[in-house]
Amino acid sequence: MVQLFKEGRGSAHAFMNWQSKEQLDLEYILNVPATVIDNHTVEVAGERFQADNLVLGTGAETVFPNIPGTDLHGVYDFVSLIEELDFEPQRCVIIGGSKVAIEYGSFFQAAGCPTTIAARKPLMRTASLHHVDEDLRQYVVDGMRKRGMQILEGVEPVAIKGDGNGNAKEVILRNMQDGSEESLACDFVFIGTGERPKSEHYREVLGVAVGEKGEILVDKHMRTSVPNVYAIGDLIGPPMEMFKARKGGMTAARNIMGEPYEFDWTDYPDFLHSTYEITWVGLSEEEARQRYDNVVVIQMPPKGVPHEDIPLPCAEGTMLYAFMYPELTGFQKAVVEGNSRRLLGFHHVGFGAKDAFQYLDYLMRRPEGITIDEMGNMNELFLNPEHFIQLCRLRAGSPNLRDL
Amino acid sequence: MVQLFKEGRGSAHAFMNWQSKEQLDLEYILNVPATVIDNHTVEVAGERFQADNLVLGTGAETVFPNIPGTDLHGVYDFVSLIEELDFEPQRCVIIGGSKVAIEYGSFFQAAGCPTTIAARKPLMRTASLHHVDEDLRQYVVDGMRKRGMQILEGVEPVAIKGDGNGNAKEVILRNMQDGSEESLACDFVFIGTGERPKSEHYREVLGVAVGEKGEILVDKHMRTSVPNVYAIGDLIGPPMEMFKARKGGMTAARNIMGEPYEFDWTDYPDFLHSTYEITWVGLSEEEARQRYDNVVVIQMPPKGVPHEDIPLPCAEGTMLYAFMYPELTGFQKAVVEGNSRRLLGFHHVGFGAKDAFQYLDYLMRRPEGITIDEMGNMNELFLNPEHFIQLCRLRAGSPNLRDL
Repeated sequence: MVQLFKEGRGSAHAFMNWQSKEQLDLEYILNVPATVIDNHTVEVAGERFQADNLVLGTGAETVFPNIPGTDLHGVYDFVSLIEELDFEPQRCVIIGGSKVAIEYGSFFQAAGCPTTIAARKPLMRTASLHHVDEDLRQYVVDGMRKRGMQILEGVEPVAIKGDGNGNAKEVILRNMQDGSEESLACDFVFIGTGERPKSEHYREVLGVAVGEKGEILVDKHMRTSVPNVYAIGDLIGPPMEMFKARKGGMTAARNIMGEPYEFDWTDYPDFLHSTYEITWVGLSEEEARQRYDNVVVIQMPPKGVPHEDIPLPCAEGTMLYAFMYPELTGFQKAVVEGNSRRLLGFHHVGFGAKDAFQYLDYLMRRPEGITIDEMGNMNELFLNPEHFIQLCRLRAGSPNLRDL
Repeated sequence: MVQLFKEGRGSAHAFMNWQSKEQLDLEYILNVPATVIDNHTVEVAGERFQADNLVLGTGAETVFPNIPGTDLHGVYDFVSLIEELDFEPQRCVIIGGSKVAIEYGSFFQAAGCPTTIAARKPLMRTASLHHVDEDLRQYVVDGMRKRGMQILEGVEPVAIKGDGNGNAKEVILRNMQDGSEESLACDFVFIGTGERPKSEHYREVLGVAVGEKGEILVDKHMRTSVPNVYAIGDLIGPPMEMFKARKGGMTAARNIMGEPYEFDWTDYPDFLHSTYEITWVGLSEEEARQRYDNVVVIQMPPKGVPHEDIPLPCAEGTMLYAFMYPELTGFQKAVVEGNSRRLLGFHHVGFGAKDAFQYLDYLMRRPEGITIDEMGNMNELFLNPEHFIQLCRLRAGSPNLRDL
């Protein structure tokens, strides 16, 4: 499995490289560190390159907790895991509760390695997940537990201990409420405590302005404080998501080519992979109720109906869940402003709905937005995991909207 | 498996019934045949109901081929399969190459029953699939063969033969080119030769006008030739798709309530489940080239690049395909009119992209359509199976579009 993962990951990256070179006519140099000399000069593998503009995109790195044992064999973060994992782990403890912790932890568990997540705060209550309602959050965390994961909240790491050969063998945790300690045996420790932009080199050499967490400060054109220097991706801070990195690169390129293109990433559709695929865009129900008086909710299962009673439409390959484990088939919610009849938010827990959220984001964000009546007018494709069109149609046209 | 399927299917239907009753306040009577007396009167289970309007929606039934042996035990269509299948089949032959044949055949094969499809014409070259290009068609049919299905094209059924106990044991086929016959041993025969609307009762009692294949003729309000009688769904002929049934029901209801709502189902997004999920909306590349001079194609893998070299982004749960079997990860194509820069069609073979096509249909069909530049401007969710936004962005903004 380890070997397969390494090779497979390489092939996907190799194709993106092929695409950039053959289809976009880019030139690039891979797998060597670059040194910035000034805002027009970069040195790579002993060669100096002159350029009118620089675009910095070197990302972020894991913030390791300041505890003993993080240098033991068997302790990885998302970077070293790919490069250095050299055994099939039997038991995993994840320190931290970040998105990376949830995504990798769910993958380890699904791949047959029993996994514990040990986090200070309740999972999914971090700032970047403020659009996720408590009922959806609970459903997702319950789902992880139902698949056998152990989730410990309100604990902090004290130490990672090794055996005589320098291999990690246990994690010591402290209960933040009563101070008691416990030990979890494991052969694999994954650090998921969040990332910090790798901006030191640019601060030292170029003097670019950074924020309090080391993120390079940029405007909506992706310009840094230094003329002719742009920065993109995780290097400019949260959200540390692929969409921002990619669209930021396009924004920098367009500005360099003379087009005053602006990119606003303050609100965006987002997702999280756990044992489910969780996707959302726009306001949560709770956020909507704080801002509007007349909020209507369309959801499956409806409020008060247990998940066990409602097998939702499933994606390809997960249909048997609907038959055997209806409680695992998902949870979805659309939030409507009842007076304007406009959709304020869409939320989905399940499988296979992610793509749709890109277009829901566009429709909701355009000036005229999208109403429940326009949703009901669309042509749906049955059976689909995200069946907002069908659900909206059950209320579309009604003069007085009420919850579904 | 048979038992699980029956129970599971029932639970999903039970929920839709619950939803109709509890959330839409409908009243209905299940599992009894209804007799229409006149255009205001229906008799059900000995009771007569009076109504201002009737909405007919009794669907279609399989056209069985006129050959000996279709009454043997072990011969089913999509209706009797659910009701009557009483053994675990070991070897299946499907007579016919309809959408139902492809969808059920792929399911039988995936469920562990080796399956042969025996069809007169090449699969997927029927009228309802005219928006599917030959390269995509070939990829889908190849994919079925790679999963072990046997596909025989250009053959017609001669007879189904049984053993001494009345159980089907072989299908005799005739090669339509050279007239030679062959026998396929099996214990399970599935009829997939297409369906015909069940309109006889309404013709006899109400005298509704029907077309040459028995379909009840309706206008865009779903009105039949008989006052106060509406018809919807498979009963009004192709496309025999769920979206048309559902939206037709809404159309009839709105018209009955006094709103002159029209529904045009001449063009629509559509899908087919094989060993893949195949989804499309708008024109195929071939159709576009017949209508426009400047057609630009954006596709993955690009033309001339083998599928084995390109692992595409995969849906949840299919990522390992990308690592082990890149040739199975899919095929996608967007068709662009190069002068207006508007999208003419989207096509996807893979898993998990279906939901997105509902919104792509809406965007493409609205008066202003959607351009490649607007696509490139959207916020994408990475990694997603249908990555049209990312692909469009690689060409968006370029003054002269060229293929990707």
